[in-house]
Amino acid sequence: MKAEIVSVGTELLLGEVSDTNAAYLASQLALLGAEVHFITAVDDSMDRLGEVLTRAWGRSDMIVVTGGLGPTQDDLTREAVACLLGEEMQVSQPLLQNLKDMFAAIGRTMSDSNIKQATLIPSAQSLANPRGTAPGWWVERDGRLLITLPGPPPEMQRMWQMEVLPRLQARTQGQALVLRTLKCFGLTEAEAGEVAGSAGDWANPSLGIYARADGIHLRMSARAASQDEAASIIAAAEARLRSVLAGHIWGTDEDSPEAAVGRLLVERELTLATMESCTGGLLGSLITDVPGSSAYYRGGLVAYANEAKVSFGVEPRLIERHGAVSRQAAEAMAEAARQRLGADVGLSTTGVAGPEGAEGKAPGLAYVAVSGALGRECIEGRYPPLRFDMKRRVAIQALLLLRRRLLAR
Amino acid sequence: MKAEIVSVGTELLLGEVSDTNAAYLASQLALLGAEVHFITAVDDSMDRLGEVLTRAWGRSDMIVVTGGLGPTQDDLTREAVACLLGEEMQVSQPLLQNLKDMFAAIGRTMSDSNIKQATLIPSAQSLANPRGTAPGWWVERDGRLLITLPGPPPEMQRMWQMEVLPRLQARTQGQALVLRTLKCFGLTEAEAGEVAGSAGDWANPSLGIYARADGIHLRMSARAASQDEAASIIAAAEARLRSVLAGHIWGTDEDSPEAAVGRLLVERELTLATMESCTGGLLGSLITDVPGSSAYYRGGLVAYANEAKVSFGVEPRLIERHGAVSRQAAEAMAEAARQRLGADVGLSTTGVAGPEGAEGKAPGLAYVAVSGALGRECIEGRYPPLRFDMKRRVAIQALLLLRRRLLAR
Repeated sequence: MKAEIVSVGTELLLGEVSDTNAAYLASQLALLGAEVHFITAVDDSMDRLGEVLTRAWGRSDMIVVTGGLGPTQDDLTREAVACLLGEEMQVSQPLLQNLKDMFAAIGRTMSDSNIKQATLIPSAQSLANPRGTAPGWWVERDGRLLITLPGPPPEMQRMWQMEVLPRLQARTQGQALVLRTLKCFGLTEAEAGEVAGSAGDWANPSLGIYARADGIHLRMSARAASQDEAASIIAAAEARLRSVLAGHIWGTDEDSPEAAVGRLLVERELTLATMESCTGGLLGSLITDVPGSSAYYRGGLVAYANEAKVSFGVEPRLIERHGAVSRQAAEAMAEAARQRLGADVGLSTTGVAGPEGAEGKAPGLAYVAVSGALGRECIEGRYPPLRFDMKRRVAIQALLLLRRRLLAR
Repeated sequence: MKAEIVSVGTELLLGEVSDTNAAYLASQLALLGAEVHFITAVDDSMDRLGEVLTRAWGRSDMIVVTGGLGPTQDDLTREAVACLLGEEMQVSQPLLQNLKDMFAAIGRTMSDSNIKQATLIPSAQSLANPRGTAPGWWVERDGRLLITLPGPPPEMQRMWQMEVLPRLQARTQGQALVLRTLKCFGLTEAEAGEVAGSAGDWANPSLGIYARADGIHLRMSARAASQDEAASIIAAAEARLRSVLAGHIWGTDEDSPEAAVGRLLVERELTLATMESCTGGLLGSLITDVPGSSAYYRGGLVAYANEAKVSFGVEPRLIERHGAVSRQAAEAMAEAARQRLGADVGLSTTGVAGPEGAEGKAPGLAYVAVSGALGRECIEGRYPPLRFDMKRRVAIQALLLLRRRLLAR
């Protein structure tokens, strides 16, 4: 099946946002065995959107359009699809009622401009959007399929997963793609590439290697006539990779360090507390991204300033002697967090975020430490000193340290 | 000048990476006054790349192509451009020598497959790439311009800034674009659209309206013969928008709530402490994203569990009586954070993040409060109960509340 993605919005053409929706949809379509040959971004212009849709309709079996479903005048996707197919938009009473109910639920009155979000054309079925006011359209005509999805990623992804995917899976048979990602930490992209290269020829499955905030991802992708066949190709390749990368692999596919840590803390019946300096709250925020984290996360202390570290129980003399960015400070912070919050395990981060150095230490240096029921350990790391990226990498390093100690227990 | 961006690479069509190059180039081209109407991503296929280039050459004055300049067989951009123009690729001896020198400098021998990176066609000049082995092409013919750039962003961006931009600036005269974004909070996208619609016809400047985590963005974009003329068109339109949206506008352009709050705290010589429940550390993380935040941010407490709130100084009876998700709890948390950390102002968040409700309250309900030197105030809000999105919106609501109190002081 030939598929094509169209992203609508002047903000894309002005470079104000990257088109992450297209990447998401492309990877999802690949999983279904569809071949995506074109991704086109076009601005909020009826003429140019019409030109792009007409060409896509002529050359592809399936078109997925994101964006342009809002209530304002510059939202033109519905109008352009209606024009492409020569059909008329009509207000759907059930959609309109649903929209009015959504506004009522948050205590607001619906504006008249929202009415066009309750329209359909005869060839379209509506795709529900409980996260926003823009339903999608599932349009089937002349053996072709056109799907419109809202632009905001959480709305788009939910609609794709819950509304579109079940309908599509029923249609795509005989072409299977199985993907499998192994996630590693503690080696470079080039090292991962060399080690992986020694473990196979990577024609099928193919292998992609990517550097991410949580380490190096090795993504295998196998194509076969059936799901089972593709899965067994992947299984054999995964065994080869695991034999050469053993100690570096910390997770697979959708695993996140925070979810892995959460599962292990629940299993081991241990509670956690944090004290963060250079990550400024991001470690706590990652931990609490996991539903159910309140069962094991006792709480966190953000001690950006040295006075705060001291007020939370770190010895001032220790900071004077070794500095706040030191192995000693990191371990003392982890232990103080544990004690202050009555948890089994304390976890800490401290580092020089930059742009300037501190304590005579260069930006990019950071320590993460664990203390308490899992013993005491500190890891020193050097990171690219870009503020956001470094915070994320240090927080993930802390979680991976905790994960390793939990597994060793 | 009509411009168009073509991104080449199967990895884009498989969704393995987002096309950040296109967003970078689009914003750069907009600043030059070029109108970018299409961004197309196409896989490493000679047929489809040829189709895309032929169409672009027919409708645009300028085409910027990224990717496909590597040494391997799937790198086809040079071949496709030569084919488009009916010209022949020839090895350039200076380019070849330069390439050999680069390999020698890192102690390696050049492979034969790199030779094609030293080729040119008669209409092309070479664009230097000191960061990699792929020079770009600057192709002028038939009054049109085609530029090829390497795919890796650091190589692409350096080539754009040092090689392409100086050449382009000499050519683009008499076309200016000025952008201006007003950022609002406390009204829906549709409401913003209706209010803005009452304030002008939005032909020039055009107006785009976007829902973001930090509220509604109204992005004006004016075109004129000179920078000054475009700026005065924007100034007049901004005055119209400000007259109708007054109380809702909290910032412009690159403003972020955390940076705005930081500036005001420094000016007012006030220090800040936080206690977070439903945001789990994200508020602290946003505050510490601002370089220099250690000057005013005393620290933060992440009190996800009720025991933690109590251990940080919130009265247990208050939580029993009103619940942890209540106006009373939010205000007590802000005050306790202020006292515990010796700050002038305390800021807090508490809410039901979901997926389940709590205390008989539905997911999506949250309170943010400020207490201390700026007086005491709490705001109740209802948010779409998506874990990540809600955390961000609640944290931003807290920052905007603090901003308003700082401005009123």
